[in-house]
Amino acid sequence: MKSTIIFNNKPVIKGYASVAGKKEIEGNLSEYFDYTDTDQYFKKDTWEQAESEIQRIAVDTALNKSNLTPEDINFIFAGDLVNQCVSSTYGLRDFHIPFLGVYGACSTMAESLLLATCMVNAGYGKLAIGVTSSHFSSAERQFRMPLSYGGQRTPSAQWTVTGGGAVIVEENSGQGDIFIKSATVGKLVDYDIKDATNMGAAMAPAAADTIQTFLKDTEISLSNIDFIITGDLGYVGSELLIDILQKEGIDISSKHRDCGIMIYDKDTQDTHSGGSGCGCGASVLTAYFLPKLQKKEIKNILFCATGALMSPTLSQQGESIPSIAHLLHISSSEN
Amino acid sequence: MKSTIIFNNKPVIKGYASVAGKKEIEGNLSEYFDYTDTDQYFKKDTWEQAESEIQRIAVDTALNKSNLTPEDINFIFAGDLVNQCVSSTYGLRDFHIPFLGVYGACSTMAESLLLATCMVNAGYGKLAIGVTSSHFSSAERQFRMPLSYGGQRTPSAQWTVTGGGAVIVEENSGQGDIFIKSATVGKLVDYDIKDATNMGAAMAPAAADTIQTFLKDTEISLSNIDFIITGDLGYVGSELLIDILQKEGIDISSKHRDCGIMIYDKDTQDTHSGGSGCGCGASVLTAYFLPKLQKKEIKNILFCATGALMSPTLSQQGESIPSIAHLLHISSSEN
Repeated sequence: MKSTIIFNNKPVIKGYASVAGKKEIEGNLSEYFDYTDTDQYFKKDTWEQAESEIQRIAVDTALNKSNLTPEDINFIFAGDLVNQCVSSTYGLRDFHIPFLGVYGACSTMAESLLLATCMVNAGYGKLAIGVTSSHFSSAERQFRMPLSYGGQRTPSAQWTVTGGGAVIVEENSGQGDIFIKSATVGKLVDYDIKDATNMGAAMAPAAADTIQTFLKDTEISLSNIDFIITGDLGYVGSELLIDILQKEGIDISSKHRDCGIMIYDKDTQDTHSGGSGCGCGASVLTAYFLPKLQKKEIKNILFCATGALMSPTLSQQGESIPSIAHLLHISSSEN
Repeated sequence: MKSTIIFNNKPVIKGYASVAGKKEIEGNLSEYFDYTDTDQYFKKDTWEQAESEIQRIAVDTALNKSNLTPEDINFIFAGDLVNQCVSSTYGLRDFHIPFLGVYGACSTMAESLLLATCMVNAGYGKLAIGVTSSHFSSAERQFRMPLSYGGQRTPSAQWTVTGGGAVIVEENSGQGDIFIKSATVGKLVDYDIKDATNMGAAMAPAAADTIQTFLKDTEISLSNIDFIITGDLGYVGSELLIDILQKEGIDISSKHRDCGIMIYDKDTQDTHSGGSGCGCGASVLTAYFLPKLQKKEIKNILFCATGALMSPTLSQQGESIPSIAHLLHISSSEN
């Protein structure tokens, strides 16, 4: 049973935008973001409102860059980490675009983009958007500690990115320069990791499973792929992913990039195992990799965003952390 | 811009199952459910585990009734009300079916079934499942009060259904008896309702918007529809929906049924404005309406599940409640 979808109509990425906050601007990718704000509240009153604003700005910027209006868009797929996905619903309500909410934790950029592509490729609409966001402060207080408590972070902990990204998918009318060729829907993978401060370890097996499934289903050779990009495995999870696949005879070590490792400066920013959050993969994909594809500097990427489906309630009940990874094959070549 | 998808390949509902708890068995639809349990824990240790079990049982029962195994299923779309949608992820992890998490609050049965149908109709897979659940106790403690506090409920409050439902969609090979003909993706609608104990009022405008959109997009006459079924508007929301549409010149009063009104006995069960929760629409659709379609007792239904995208955090920040409604046209006739 194949779980990889081949997009025969080769939908194109019409536009995209990235948003980043203060710590992200101080990191390695400072020059690449479309919209930045050093105010952690993004000029709103609360962290949750700030994250809604990030998502609104991401969509608004992507529409503007593409000379499109909200009325042009058939469907928008969105989700985020805040309970009840309120960054998406409150951030996007004023666009009045037919809305489909998704929950995939930090895999959301891949899930929302995958579903947007499914709709466009099937001809259900001409244009669809996938969007997500995260905010350090809204995530910390919900998943971990009140920030004012000043709890110590473990070496395997990751730093939730304040940022987001939106991608607009359009039916192929012969004008495109970035194409979505196929996508693999991930399975729930649970390796019995119970340490909620080590999400990289919980997510790495899901990434390995989905990457293996993609390679098996499509029979594409790794030699044709420039980069295999994970969303936010961080240092701990990335090492594990490379190890797991190595044992299966698949060496991705030279092609693997992790957005959580890329976004912050290891030496000066003290984020321990790197960045995380839906906004990590979303902002790095839209700020760094999609422009490189558009400029034909690279040809083929596999974007594989992973989600640790952890819950404070279930962790307190002693449960392990199931994870998931969805993957898209994105190319600067139609053929 | 039409937001209604016409499913030209007429996917069929291959199977379905309903699950219900103690209070639901004591209600009006006692005789219809596939699986019932009077133990509020469904033989597990916590309410959240019980809700995961409801979702597992719903899928397992639907598969068994259809002589299918998890390996036969290409995709499963699932979501629920518990933070991080853990009823879905923990309940379904052992099936190893490619998983796509959705969040639409109480609209989840319509959203998951709509997306499952999109995948099958497009030929991305032969079989897909939509499933959801809710549990009175997991919802109360998360959204409202600790149950042991014994807080008084307002007259407009609704009672979260302990139950769930799963629907299996299959590509049309000429064998089906229930067909999904089209679906309307809803927009986020916010009428500035801030009373989190009056979800019916928050959701009614979303239902009205989606039903109007469907009728306009498809030009189907109401005279061809047996029932317009809402998920959980309850008494307050149902009256509002009928009023709003009346003012637009659309009279649905004789054809409207609300699962939240149907499931409990008004006189003996003291649920105030009726039932609610993802499991309300899901269990009533799968227990009551789909069998009626299968037996050809009715011909056409519009299943329109609504979601109040409320969040305790945002309500405490003074925000209003955006809502959404997705709709499916389900028929016992292929033509």
